[in-house]
Amino acid sequence: MIFASDNWAGAHPRIAANLAAHASGYEPAYGNGELDARVQKKFAEIFEREVAVFFVGTGTAANALSLVSADRPGGLSFCHRESHIMDDECGAPEYFMGGSRLFAVDGALGRIDPESLAAAVGRFAVDNVHAGRPAAISITQATEVGTVYGLNHIRAISEVARKHSLPLHMDGARFANALVSLGATPAEMTWKSGVDIVSFGGTKNGCWCAEAVVMFDLDRAKEFSFIRKRAAQLFSKSRFIAAQFDAYFEGGLWLETAAHANAMASRLARHIAGSNKARLAWQPGANEVFAIMPEATAMMLQEKGARFYEWLKPARFDGGMADGEKLWRFVTSFATTADDVDRFGETIG
Amino acid sequence: MIFASDNWAGAHPRIAANLAAHASGYEPAYGNGELDARVQKKFAEIFEREVAVFFVGTGTAANALSLVSADRPGGLSFCHRESHIMDDECGAPEYFMGGSRLFAVDGALGRIDPESLAAAVGRFAVDNVHAGRPAAISITQATEVGTVYGLNHIRAISEVARKHSLPLHMDGARFANALVSLGATPAEMTWKSGVDIVSFGGTKNGCWCAEAVVMFDLDRAKEFSFIRKRAAQLFSKSRFIAAQFDAYFEGGLWLETAAHANAMASRLARHIAGSNKARLAWQPGANEVFAIMPEATAMMLQEKGARFYEWLKPARFDGGMADGEKLWRFVTSFATTADDVDRFGETIG
Amino acid sequence: MIFASDNWAGAHPRIAANLAAHASGYEPAYGNGELDARVQKKFAEIFEREVAVFFVGTGTAANALSLVSADRPGGLSFCHRESHIMDDECGAPEYFMGGSRLFAVDGALGRIDPESLAAAVGRFAVDNVHAGRPAAISITQATEVGTVYGLNHIRAISEVARKHSLPLHMDGARFANALVSLGATPAEMTWKSGVDIVSFGGTKNGCWCAEAVVMFDLDRAKEFSFIRKRAAQLFSKSRFIAAQFDAYFEGGLWLETAAHANAMASRLARHIAGSNKARLAWQPGANEVFAIMPEATAMMLQEKGARFYEWLKPARFDGGMADGEKLWRFVTSFATTADDVDRFGETIG
Amino acid sequence: MIFASDNWAGAHPRIAANLAAHASGYEPAYGNGELDARVQKKFAEIFEREVAVFFVGTGTAANALSLVSADRPGGLSFCHRESHIMDDECGAPEYFMGGSRLFAVDGALGRIDPESLAAAVGRFAVDNVHAGRPAAISITQATEVGTVYGLNHIRAISEVARKHSLPLHMDGARFANALVSLGATPAEMTWKSGVDIVSFGGTKNGCWCAEAVVMFDLDRAKEFSFIRKRAAQLFSKSRFIAAQFDAYFEGGLWLETAAHANAMASRLARHIAGSNKARLAWQPGANEVFAIMPEATAMMLQEKGARFYEWLKPARFDGGMADGEKLWRFVTSFATTADDVDRFGETIG
Repeated sequence: MIFASDNWAGAHPRIAANLAAHASGYEPAYGNGELDARVQKKFAEIFEREVAVFFVGTGTAANALSLVSADRPGGLSFCHRESHIMDDECGAPEYFMGGSRLFAVDGALGRIDPESLAAAVGRFAVDNVHAGRPAAISITQATEVGTVYGLNHIRAISEVARKHSLPLHMDGARFANALVSLGATPAEMTWKSGVDIVSFGGTKNGCWCAEAVVMFDLDRAKEFSFIRKRAAQLFSKSRFIAAQFDAYFEGGLWLETAAHANAMASRLARHIAGSNKARLAWQPGANEVFAIMPEATAMMLQEKGARFYEWLKPARFDGGMADGEKLWRFVTSFATTADDVDRFGETIG
Repeated sequence: MIFASDNWAGAHPRIAANLAAHASGYEPAYGNGELDARVQKKFAEIFEREVAVFFVGTGTAANALSLVSADRPGGLSFCHRESHIMDDECGAPEYFMGGSRLFAVDGALGRIDPESLAAAVGRFAVDNVHAGRPAAISITQATEVGTVYGLNHIRAISEVARKHSLPLHMDGARFANALVSLGATPAEMTWKSGVDIVSFGGTKNGCWCAEAVVMFDLDRAKEFSFIRKRAAQLFSKSRFIAAQFDAYFEGGLWLETAAHANAMASRLARHIAGSNKARLAWQPGANEVFAIMPEATAMMLQEKGARFYEWLKPARFDGGMADGEKLWRFVTSFATTADDVDRFGETIG
Repeated sequence: MIFASDNWAGAHPRIAANLAAHASGYEPAYGNGELDARVQKKFAEIFEREVAVFFVGTGTAANALSLVSADRPGGLSFCHRESHIMDDECGAPEYFMGGSRLFAVDGALGRIDPESLAAAVGRFAVDNVHAGRPAAISITQATEVGTVYGLNHIRAISEVARKHSLPLHMDGARFANALVSLGATPAEMTWKSGVDIVSFGGTKNGCWCAEAVVMFDLDRAKEFSFIRKRAAQLFSKSRFIAAQFDAYFEGGLWLETAAHANAMASRLARHIAGSNKARLAWQPGANEVFAIMPEATAMMLQEKGARFYEWLKPARFDGGMADGEKLWRFVTSFATTADDVDRFGETIG
Repeated sequence: MIFASDNWAGAHPRIAANLAAHASGYEPAYGNGELDARVQKKFAEIFEREVAVFFVGTGTAANALSLVSADRPGGLSFCHRESHIMDDECGAPEYFMGGSRLFAVDGALGRIDPESLAAAVGRFAVDNVHAGRPAAISITQATEVGTVYGLNHIRAISEVARKHSLPLHMDGARFANALVSLGATPAEMTWKSGVDIVSFGGTKNGCWCAEAVVMFDLDRAKEFSFIRKRAAQLFSKSRFIAAQFDAYFEGGLWLETAAHANAMASRLARHIAGSNKARLAWQPGANEVFAIMPEATAMMLQEKGARFYEWLKPARFDGGMADGEKLWRFVTSFATTADDVDRFGETIG
């Protein structure tokens, strides 16, 4: 009953096996090998167009360096107030940008409200050096609270981006979970909806350590190899990332694992919705479930072997929480079993 | 006949197997799992004292963040003119330090000359804000040109460090190769000789991607978890690094692979020394061999399947190179076979 | 009728004259001259204790470098949501800190609410590398909206700072205006109330360009000469700043000019309060007056020669503003005349 | 007999007077006043073309921000090994660039040798992310050792810059001294010889604190207002810099003061050349004289009231210095009198 994080799982057996299969033999280092080239081509197929793909080691790096590539002096990157880049990266985006700022925008359930965004960006006059100036917009798909932006929502945000000539970045640490939730294609969920740069995450969905920055503007991408190397994210034995993505995409494994994780979350949500000890805070859109219950109930569940974390109540959330009630996060993954979920269901009964 | 780099090899089979063995099951993320703790304890055993160990993803990161931990405003880090941190990291150390400078010191065959170092550090008066001030000293063991610092040499450098109250960092991307070359213990080669911080590399010696910053001053280490996270080097599924180190140390594998790579380099060196088409630039101390030969000879060897790179002649090297002669680097690894080396020997005959 | 900014005024005649008086003769550069030493001693007298004083060229620099001196990896500096460092320095504090973040705290009328501050700081667990960690607290005295922290208010904030071992910084761009408003001594308004670092501004109160970072912890100050030089804020002919401060303090000029500016603001406020075309948004505490009026009224006033700017409505301000009404800022200075103020009074009638 | 530095002098009386003359009255802040506009126009006249002009407070800032404007990820800025930006700014250029590196190039007497420059730049292959890549070239005019680049020399360097598409920056802290030494026009010494960005210094030549970044590429200049503000170099009462430049240019004062300083240096050099206690290290080109003499002689001169500093012997200087002999720097300025110089001449006899 481990619902602590999708990061508590290891690697999917097919990914682990492929990594082992590529352990022998020589390959040019630093991403110049055949496997790297083949996997990069695979990205182009998946996104149905030419793309620039840069492997990096962590989601933090993918996000921070994506924003570096969009930044300019005095730049502001707009993101959701409770986004991962704002709350959970120890200031890495600003550190890598050398001090440019993240600007918090509100919106219900982890999704930026396009009108709030337009107002926030609009506050900054182009020539006002005192206030700084917009440089990028970043959305998280799926969001930190397990919801998913619909395609129309993404397009509404990209309209603001276009109006102000700002690149739109998608933090896709849970890209696959959102994708299968929407039933959209990767192209539809990104460049066809106005996204310019994607942090494409594999780690949370069954890889060990496989993240990629995907860029649709090949001109912008020209700087990126220096941005990545300078940031200590160019791996010498880069094929160890390529081999993970290779297995990840093979036979659509990535969509299977994401669909499984999402299904487990739905199953878990049904148990919680049907329980009288806890209730859903909101409907899950991907592989995270947020529930409201008293601390005592949570303690009881933990004692019986369940693992999950308390979550800070979002600023704008009004879920009718009573005194003593708290918000809790449950995360499922490729490794979650229906048995485990059902066992939890019995426990919470 | 692949002597291009120790990074062209993949992972040692026992390391690949151990990684696969740890793929299943749940573990707390971000280095809080049992395997991480066990491997960190192993580091303490190896170094014969309490140490702080921080896994990171690349040697570039290990070096850059080690220097960040030692830096201060206006700081200068002294390193060899042709060290890896100076020549091959796209300025990553300075980038992560936010602008502090690397200061080049000379010395024969890739090793800092202690007297030159004393003179260089001594140039900077403690109170001269215009010139900046020393912050750290960094040596590379084994060096970029395949030589090894003897223990007395390290101690002579650490005396300069002590005199000026500067921490001494060792870039140990090829730590194991130097260690078996010296026949020293890890303790002797580091803290017993005055080293304060080690970039402990596993990648070049048979791991996929396993580097660690090892600190002997636990107080200094308190800042490091923030330094690492902010730098996008805290891996969520950290056990994938731990599992590599686990197998790396198990049964002394790391010393075996290093000893093998060194032996292959010696064997290769003997072939070159005995050839009339090329000659050794200097005696190898670890797993890199540098040879002098005309470009035509190198092309002939490449055509017959050998892979190796030209190397920029060190500033202070006077090897009696004739017009048209060039310097070439050959690197061996755990994966190099005696057959391959001997086949090269026959080719160069 | 120039109420655009206290920066639109030039220099007070006595300051201009003293600068001219010190133009001839030789003085050691970079702050090592006698005049610099004498003026620094004057700061110690004013603050009734030993202090470290560092001249810099702009308020932006004083604030940014103060925060640099308090920063640490992953650091967060807490300030008011609408403070100057947040809204009007193009991200300079974060740039100089190399990426550490400003964290917005709310509070009525430009003053941080101590409870909100305690809650904000308390959110960050000491060991949570993901979220980063508190590094400093910064208050603005007088605030950006012309109000002043009382001594008890400062002490309440410094209690939060002490509890979390955080240095407390005061942005004193309008230090003198606040001081005379409170009728307190410099010591009372700073270290006796728990302030550790002061950006001591002279520019807005009659100097050309005279700002100083004042530190009460002499140990912390040891790093600062490097922090300042590296930041391009060590002036070679430093006496040109010293000469300004020299005249500024001479005979209490600084308190006179501040008292005059404040009195002019009060006079202006009375005119506005008595007008039926505009009303005060809140009572002024120093030398800034904020008024509510329709754009048409403001345009009429501008046409008749008044100069003042629109001000963005503070997030938490509920001043019963009607549709079409806007918020406007008026700033007085040493140069403002009672005639000018009264002429404005007649105009707004 | 003060030859310690041109920074030991104060301000020229006409500059001090003009500053006082502009002290009264209101002017829009942050460089938006009429005087600023008028002085900027004057720069355009002086350079015989449209230019972008940005006032800053220190030469360190002018240099660092010029390089920021030319920088890119992994960038290297080439400068003379003993240039001011390398030796005397506490790493400010790298700090403001966020870590990009200065790359030392050699050349006799403080001037970059074009062939060495070509070789240094040529070492960096455009696609080699490991080594980083050239971003800018910076020369100092007059140099740190008082010599001056001839126009052909500048053109030879700008050819290297053009070949590699690198902007050429001129550190003109002593721009006027070099200009009158060459008898060239500002246009000839800069853009007509291939210079793209100038740090135009007024401080050392009679101003209090007046430096400007002058850009000939107006497109590049578009970013600069943000680069300057973010770097705390936008002065609120900017007219205090404008007023200095106003008087500086009026009636060619700047050329007069520079010519005077240079003449004083020549006069001083003749005294030294004619002395048997000291000898010239090399011929002065501007307002600095370097002499060789034993420490005892220097001490004797200091005791008799002369002020001057020891200078670190340049790496490539072979001036036949005997044991016990040292190198000393003498700087003249607008304030130096012929009497003082002659008194020194008598003393050194």
